[in-house]
Parts: sequence; structure tokens; C-alpha cells
Amino acid sequence: MSDSQHRVTFQPQGRAVSVLEGTTILEAAAIASLVIDTPCGGAGTCGKCRVQVAQGATEPSDAERKAFTVAELADGWRLACQTRVDGDMVIHVPTGSLFGGDHQIARDSAVGGPSEVQPAIRKVYVELPAPTLEDPRPDLLRLEEKIGSFNVDVAMLRHAPGQLRQQGYKGTAVLSDHQLIDLEVGDTTQRCFGVAIDIGTTTMVASVLNLCNGRELAIMSRINPQVSFGDDVLSRIQHSASCPHGLEELRQAVVHEIAGMVRALCDEAGIDARFIYEAAFAGNTTMQHLLCGVDPSPLGAVPFAPAYARGMLLSARDMEIPINPHGMCYVFPVIGGFVGGDTVAGMLATRIDELEGPVLMVDIGTNGEIVLAHDGELFGASTAAGPAFEGARISCGMRGTRGAIEKVLLDGDVHLGVIGNVPPMGICGSGLIDLAAEMLRVGIVSREGRLLPTDESPADVPPALADRVRADDNGNTVFVLTEPDGGTTHKPLSLTQRDIRELQLGSGAIRAGISMLLRKVGLRPADLKTILIAGGFGSFIRRGNAQRIGLLPPDVDHKRIHYVGNVSLAGAQWAVLSLEARKHGEELARRTRHVELSVDGDFQAEFAEAMIFPER
Amino acid sequence: MSDSQHRVTFQPQGRAVSVLEGTTILEAAAIASLVIDTPCGGAGTCGKCRVQVAQGATEPSDAERKAFTVAELADGWRLACQTRVDGDMVIHVPTGSLFGGDHQIARDSAVGGPSEVQPAIRKVYVELPAPTLEDPRPDLLRLEEKIGSFNVDVAMLRHAPGQLRQQGYKGTAVLSDHQLIDLEVGDTTQRCFGVAIDIGTTTMVASVLNLCNGRELAIMSRINPQVSFGDDVLSRIQHSASCPHGLEELRQAVVHEIAGMVRALCDEAGIDARFIYEAAFAGNTTMQHLLCGVDPSPLGAVPFAPAYARGMLLSARDMEIPINPHGMCYVFPVIGGFVGGDTVAGMLATRIDELEGPVLMVDIGTNGEIVLAHDGELFGASTAAGPAFEGARISCGMRGTRGAIEKVLLDGDVHLGVIGNVPPMGICGSGLIDLAAEMLRVGIVSREGRLLPTDESPADVPPALADRVRADDNGNTVFVLTEPDGGTTHKPLSLTQRDIRELQLGSGAIRAGISMLLRKVGLRPADLKTILIAGGFGSFIRRGNAQRIGLLPPDVDHKRIHYVGNVSLAGAQWAVLSLEARKHGEELARRTRHVELSVDGDFQAEFAEAMIFPER
Repeated sequence: MSDSQHRVTFQPQGRAVSVLEGTTILEAAAIASLVIDTPCGGAGTCGKCRVQVAQGATEPSDAERKAFTVAELADGWRLACQTRVDGDMVIHVPTGSLFGGDHQIARDSAVGGPSEVQPAIRKVYVELPAPTLEDPRPDLLRLEEKIGSFNVDVAMLRHAPGQLRQQGYKGTAVLSDHQLIDLEVGDTTQRCFGVAIDIGTTTMVASVLNLCNGRELAIMSRINPQVSFGDDVLSRIQHSASCPHGLEELRQAVVHEIAGMVRALCDEAGIDARFIYEAAFAGNTTMQHLLCGVDPSPLGAVPFAPAYARGMLLSARDMEIPINPHGMCYVFPVIGGFVGGDTVAGMLATRIDELEGPVLMVDIGTNGEIVLAHDGELFGASTAAGPAFEGARISCGMRGTRGAIEKVLLDGDVHLGVIGNVPPMGICGSGLIDLAAEMLRVGIVSREGRLLPTDESPADVPPALADRVRADDNGNTVFVLTEPDGGTTHKPLSLTQRDIRELQLGSGAIRAGISMLLRKVGLRPADLKTILIAGGFGSFIRRGNAQRIGLLPPDVDHKRIHYVGNVSLAGAQWAVLSLEARKHGEELARRTRHVELSVDGDFQAEFAEAMIFPER
Repeated sequence: MSDSQHRVTFQPQGRAVSVLEGTTILEAAAIASLVIDTPCGGAGTCGKCRVQVAQGATEPSDAERKAFTVAELADGWRLACQTRVDGDMVIHVPTGSLFGGDHQIARDSAVGGPSEVQPAIRKVYVELPAPTLEDPRPDLLRLEEKIGSFNVDVAMLRHAPGQLRQQGYKGTAVLSDHQLIDLEVGDTTQRCFGVAIDIGTTTMVASVLNLCNGRELAIMSRINPQVSFGDDVLSRIQHSASCPHGLEELRQAVVHEIAGMVRALCDEAGIDARFIYEAAFAGNTTMQHLLCGVDPSPLGAVPFAPAYARGMLLSARDMEIPINPHGMCYVFPVIGGFVGGDTVAGMLATRIDELEGPVLMVDIGTNGEIVLAHDGELFGASTAAGPAFEGARISCGMRGTRGAIEKVLLDGDVHLGVIGNVPPMGICGSGLIDLAAEMLRVGIVSREGRLLPTDESPADVPPALADRVRADDNGNTVFVLTEPDGGTTHKPLSLTQRDIRELQLGSGAIRAGISMLLRKVGLRPADLKTILIAGGFGSFIRRGNAQRIGLLPPDVDHKRIHYVGNVSLAGAQWAVLSLEARKHGEELARRTRHVELSVDGDFQAEFAEAMIFPER
């Protein structure tokens, strides 16, 4: 047992992440925003998550020995769900192991290959004939005849013609769509980069892309420094509304951190930031407002109307993002106050409108964002799930970091999986879902969510488990996860009746939201052809257990449920790499009907109903 | 005789100018950029220049008594070419008296009427439904649904949504094409103004327009303060190239003066400059480069290539023009290094491409700009006429201001018309043309330009005139215009042989340019259906005399020659008032083939030929 970190590099994607020892390759891939398909839910039975460990292969597990030939094992073939990191590793991920088949191939090629790379940024090396008496055409006109018509601002109008002459009518023109934004000495066409940034409420992920071929050169994540002003969007909205310089404080915090990420990415990729001409940002509506310095206070009160809807192309200099000073920032379109640019980016990256429908996409977090694609129509809604899935308001809850119980199995007694293989310090969202699902399964918790005292336990509950339901010092019923051991510094961990209620609230909100959207188009959960679980957290939950507690529709074949990972980042990458994709994102945002669940009279009833755990 | 100034106001155009006593109404109108048609050349014979003097009518002349009934005379009807200003006057100019018939009506309506007023600037008063839970659409989206889609910059993105909410979702949106540039409290749609500015090398004329109805609210002119850096474009180009901050000095000089004009126009019109959202600028290529702060030095040397060609929409803030800070500046497209935005504006204002062709437009100045429209094709050229027409390099030359001889008649003896009716101090361009034409007519000057001594004079030259050809103190042959009178402070005035050579150079350059353009398309001067004389100076020359010396083609019926005045200003006004007109101007500039005369091997021969005065 060690809590050391190891570096795992995925090829051919070229992504590298540092993870705790004991993390599965499946989880490490999710952290790197690579979504490996696991129809069996990571049980090691379907053999779908095949990867080749090129460096640092460990002893194969029994499941792996069944899945591969001896020769394959010797070549490093393993199952991503079974192999755990115990040193630096290099993993080859075949396209066939990524989620989505052909669909994923298309997505992958946009990020990794040249086929769909048609960015808004265009660099053209030109060698123009110098003016002569026979051909005294204006400088910018001779440039236009080579690269097409463009606009300039005053600064570029003053700079470009002289620059062109100084360079002997040679150089590299940089265009952002139809705006001439720079004119560089020599042929710099191969130095053309963009950054894509997913601004999460908690975590920001940024990657730098080579706009010539779409390749990702570096990726990194950092905590959104706005967390010091509050964990959730509402507390940040309140800070911006109540403090005189609150909005500017929040804006500067996030911009400063993004600037640091851009510099760090440039260092890692070995490039100069002045060759980055565009940054694309996808985040929830509040995060995007704060990034742009737009007052988010209307998002904090009924009717939660955002300031803007369409995607915007803004000056990097005005935004204070330290890429090329004439570069541009693209900020994603939003659908509503709580269905933001990250959702639009996810819709774009998953091509939700092209998948066999009906398709449901769910991003589970403090707010659950739900998108339904059916018969050419798109619906988007959000539901306040509360912070239970992020470990908050749970008595022994914590985020999914080192020491968090992230997996629970009740098999005769309690079996815990802890991140980092250290003594458990608390329970995170995925552990909580596992625990609740297992307690339901064995019968310690009723469908109504009541924690059953030992004397009410069904007869077939193993005594060791039944015994763990006790009254604590305050007389509250609890389920004891870890017993006090006297010698350790860690307090014993229990789940309280109140914790279960919090989980019911969170799960019920999302389930009710899904039901409402489905009902709007006359569908039942069983009609869904595909369910996409988006977002970092989603990648860690176990589908079966999420269905057991009703967070995901129980009556859907779990093979139809797919983890798609950080599709917000993937969508932002697309937007940098393809003007067409960006336009498509705009269209998706415009087409999606925003359903405000809280105004629907049926929602409260549905919500109350959804808090009851599903029948077996 | 008085040198006092009087104010002459023209209606319904609403233009007012201050002119010297004794100026004809025709001349005063030209100063106000109103071109009254005078097929007879101002001889008082055709009766075409009918105007009604509503205030300050003088005694009618004989020509006027022939042209009007007694009742008409009593109603103030007069001929603009005959009536001279001798006090403040208000003149009604019927549309039929303006140059160009139907064509002029169209031009007039664009400046004065609402029919074609479709500016790039658009103001829309909106009352939007405030967001509700049933309708929580984003602020800018609900604005877009009312006024069409628009872009914003970072400043407006931060400003507009909050402003909209503060104003209770009411207010006036200001759009520059598809850019939202302001959002104002209340309904300000009736306060929507633009300025049009003609930047001449010597004189700048600016007018402020009501963009709701196209009406001109005020017009004024000022000397271009760059004259202190040199009279002509080349000396300014040299200043910008040779002094470290030369370009910035020149830019600031003109921008500072324009700022003063904008303030003065606002005072006169009683409007606030923040309601001016656009300024359109037309000037020669060098003037436009200097205005934009673009290095003009390539215009000072072979091959005279400008920096840019297309018209540009630039930020008023960046340009430091004190209109609304979010407003825009439109700078006209240019055709070549010496065929600039003023020529394009003139082509636009005269609709040269729609007139019955072939059409020739000539703007006579230090550079003569020549445009030929024939069979759907457009050609533009410039020719270095030298400063003779502006009085420079002529021994007794001066600008057309008070004291300048502006009209000469040789009828038995010398008869002079002097601006301001004061003793003559020198001779200006139109006087010079008259004098040369008259000397040719009576036979004192040969076709080769030689001033004939008394003994070589033809027999029919009146002795009083023949006697005026003398040898001066240096032994040079001169023609004496005014004898010394001993008592005055004014020295006697003479025209030297060398002065005639200067005039031959200037006239020959323009004539050769015209010939070259015509030859390019296989035409002769007599084929021209219309000749347009553009520019302030052009309005003062007498066509017959200009034809006599060959400045204008002699073998063209003088009725086909029309003065069109300051069409550069008129074109700039169109550009402010009509986005369509602006696009048309862009198209005209693009379509016009720039003919570089100096590279044509035939030009020098043509030039030498053209310096010989035409046969009678």
C-alpha cells in the first residue's frame, strides 16, 4: 500500500496524467478524458476494454488470463478495468476500445487526425510580387488576392503594410475567419496552435492543440480558484452580487489561473504562446459569465435568465488571456441559466443529434444537466441535485480524492475500495451510490429509504451486516462502515438515516428530471436507445448500482448506458479545430428547447415519487 | 466696393455659407457644394440657373429682365449667374436648377430626402418582456429576437445585459450593421446622426446628417492644418518619412482639427456628439493614409503603391474621432496611389456608371484625377498637373481668395474681375485660364505658347493690348496686367513667358491624361457624351476658356460639360446614409482599372503634344 503517484501516458492520443497507485487504467483514462467502453461495467467479463501496456505491465489477473492468449498477455494486452497502476506506464489504447465505435472514430479523428481539422484560424505563407510601376496595386490588396478578402482593425492597418514591405513582401498571414490578426516574419505556418478549456465549477481542464493536424500537445487540470469564494455556483453569484468588486475578483481569479495553465501548457508542449491564436471556453452558464466579467446575479434568482445565449468571439486582449494579443476567445453558446456551454460542448462532442435515438445525456453533479434527443428534436433541462454526489451534506462525505471510499460491496460483510489504498477517511459519490444500492439489495434499507433496525431486518440479511445498523450516541439510526480501532487517528465512519435522505433528494431530482423530459415527448425509459453519462464524476459510478437506486432509469439494458467522460473539453477542442463544428454547436444550442422543470406543476409530484427507490 | 462678408442660406437644402460681397449666387452655391446647372457657362443667356431670392433680392440685370416676367421678378426670381451678393440672403434653389436633372434629383433625395436613406447605423426602440419562469430566455437573445442577430465586443457584453435590466427591458439599441454598439435609456431613435468629411489637401469640409431622414443639419469647412507641414501631398509624405514622429504629428493635426469640426457642427446643429455613431471620410490616398496613421512613404516613390485598397470600418475610439465612443469610422476605398477615396466618392455621388456614356470626370488640382466610364468599364488615372491652377509657381499667382483676379476679359483693353472687388493682388487659377485663353484669342500668344512682342502681333490686335507686351527690367517678355499707379501699396502685376509655360505644363498634363484614357478605349474627345468637372476649383473655371487652352477637350459641345462641385463630400454623405451606396462605392473602386500613365511609353509624346494650345 502506497500513496505515491505514477505517470500514465496514453498513446496514440499522447495524453499523460499522474494518478495514485492502485488506480485502474480505466479510471486513469477517464481522468485523461479518454473514455474506454465497458459494457460489463468494469466487471472484467466482457473483454471490451482491451489496451496494450507498452511499458510497466503488471501480472495479469484471472479475468485477463481468460480474455487473452498467452502471446497476447506477453505482448502487454490487458483489460483497462482490471489492471491497476503500480508504476509509470505507457498504454496503447486501440480506437476499438474507445466508446462509441464509428462515432468515436470520428470524434477521435477530429481531436487526433487531420480529416476534419478546418479551424477558424488559418495561416498562409505568402510570397507576393513587390509593387512595380506596371503593378502598383495596394499592399493589402495584393495580400487579399492571395489569401482572400479580410478585415483589419486600426492596429493591424497600421502594422501590416509596413511589416509586409520590411519583410520583402514575404511572410505568414494569420487569419481568424475573415479578420487579419497577424503578419509574421518567414514561414510560420507549422506553428499554429489553439487551446481548449473546460471551466468546471471545481476543476478546469485545458489542452493545447496543433491546429495543423489536430493533435493534442499537452493537457492539464487545475482547481478553479474561485472555490475559495464558495463551492457552488450560487455562492459565487452571491459573492459577485454582494461584494463591491466581487465580480472582478472572481473574473481575475479564473483568468489568472487560466493564464498560468496556458503558460504551463506552452512549457510542456515547447511552444511560444504568441503562436496560440485562439482559446475556446466551455463551462456552465455561471462560469462563462464570470470568465467574461458579465454580472451573473440574474442567474441567482427566479427566473434565472442568462445575459447572453449565442457563442461569442471576443478579443483575447480584452479578455486578458495571454495568447497572441491579436488572438480571439470563443465562448460557447448557452441554452439556459443552468444548461450552459459545457452541455452544448458535450452535445457537440457526442454528436447526440446523429446517434440512434432516443438518446439521453446526463451530467451528474450539483446540478444535473439532462439532454434528450428524439425524432430530430432536442430538449435540455437542469435539476438541482444538491451536493450529495460531491460528498457534501453527507456526514462522512468527501470528494473523490485520496482516502475516499469509492467502491462498496456488501458480501457477508462490508468490503471497501479506497482511493490510494489508504485507511478510509470518508465516502465519495460513487461509494455512496454503491453503498445505498448494496443496502437496498441486501434489505437493510427499505424502498422508502428507511434504515431498518436489526429487529426489522429481513431474515436473509447476514448477521454481520444486520449488526452494523445501530443507534449512535444521539439515538440516531446509523449504518457503521468502519469500527473504531482505538489506535488510528481516523474516526469510525457511519452512514446516517439523514445521509440516505440527502442521497434520495439528489437521485430523485435527476430521476424526476429524466422522467419529465421523457414524458414531454411521450416516451418511457425503456424506449431509450442510448444513455450517455457525461462528466468526470459520471465516469466513476457503476451503472448497475446507479440504476438500482433509480439515479439512472432501472428499466434500461445497462449495455445502452455509456460513459463519455469530459465531453465539455472534447467539444471545446472541436470548436478550436473546426469552424463547421462550432457552427454546428451554435445550431444545437439554438435548436435545443430549454425546459424549466421548476415551473412545471407536475415536477414536485414527480420528484416526490422519484425519491422512492425503484422496485427490484 | 466693400470687402465685407455676407451669409447666404440655400433652401430647401439648408446650407449656409459666408461669402465676400460681389460673389455671384452661382459661386456661393458652389462653395456650399450645391451645383447649379449653367449650360451657357454663366453668360446669363440660357436662363437655366433660376433661383428665387426669398430675402435680400437686388435689382434685376438686363439678362434677368429678359429671362423673367415682371411678376416673377417681383417674386424674387433671378439668375444665379447674374445676381451678386450684397447683403445676407436666403435663396430657394428649385431641384430643376441643380445639375443633372433626374440624376440630380436622386442625388438630392439621398442627401435631403428619406427615399434612399438606409444607413449602416440603425436604432431600434425596444420594449421587451422581462424574463419570467415561463420565459427565462437570455437577455441578449430576447433583444436579438426583436432586432435581429448581432455581435458584441467584450465591453458591450459586460454593459448591455445589465443596462437592459436596469432600464426595465426598455431602451434603444444602436446597431452598426450587425454589431451592437450601444443601448440607451428611453426612446432615442430620433437622435441618430452621422458626419461626412471630405479631407482635402488644403480644405476639409464636414457636414452632419440626420440619419432618420437624410437631412443635413450643418456644414462647415476648415483649412487642413497639415498645410503647415507642406502645401502638397509629397511634402507631407516627406515629412512623415524624414521626421521621427512625423506621421504621428500629421495624424494628430488632422484628427485634432476634425474633432474641432465635429464639436462645432454639434453646437450649430444643437446635438450631442454621443448621438453621432458614424463618420465617413473621403480624401486622396495620402490624406486617408495620414488620417489612419498608416505610413504613406511608399506613396512618395515609384511605384506609388498604397497600403490598402478596400474601404474600412474602424473603431472611432481607436481613430480618436470624438463621436460616440462605440461608433465607427468608414474610410473610403482607393483606386491607386494618386486616385483616392475622394475620386471614388465622386464616382459614387455622380453615379458615373449610370450616366449616358462615354462619361469623363475630371478633378483639376495639383493632381488631376481623371475617370472614364465607357461601355460598363471604368478607368481611373491621375496626372501631375503641378500647382499652377492653385496659383503657385506663377510669378503673380495666388489662391482664389480676396484680391485674386478670377476673371479676365480682353476687349479692346484688359478688364479684370477681382474677388472681393478690391484692388487686384494677384491672379488665381480661373483668372489664369481666362487670361491665357483671351491672349490666344486675340493673338498675343502663339499656339506654341510664345508671348509675341509688339512687332510680331497680328495686325488686328488692339493697340492698347499689343502695347502691354513689353520687356521687363530683366529683359524678359511679359504681359502687363496692371500698370504701376505710384500711389498704391500694390505692385504692378504681369504675366511672364515662364508663367505661360507653367500653365502649358499643367494644362498639357491633364489634356494628355484625358487623351491617353480615351485612346485606351478607342474613343475621341468628340465621342464624349458628358464631361463632369468635379472639385471646388473646377466650379469656378469657365468652360469655353478651359477648352480654348485645351485643358478640356476643345471639340466637345460645351453643353456637355457640367460642373458637379464637391462630389467627394456628397459621396461621403451617401456612404453615411446608405449601406447600399457604400457597397456600390466599394464595387466602383474594385471595378475601376487603375491606369498608370507614367509607365506608358506614349505618355511623354502625348504630353509634349498636349502642351501646344489647340487650333482655333
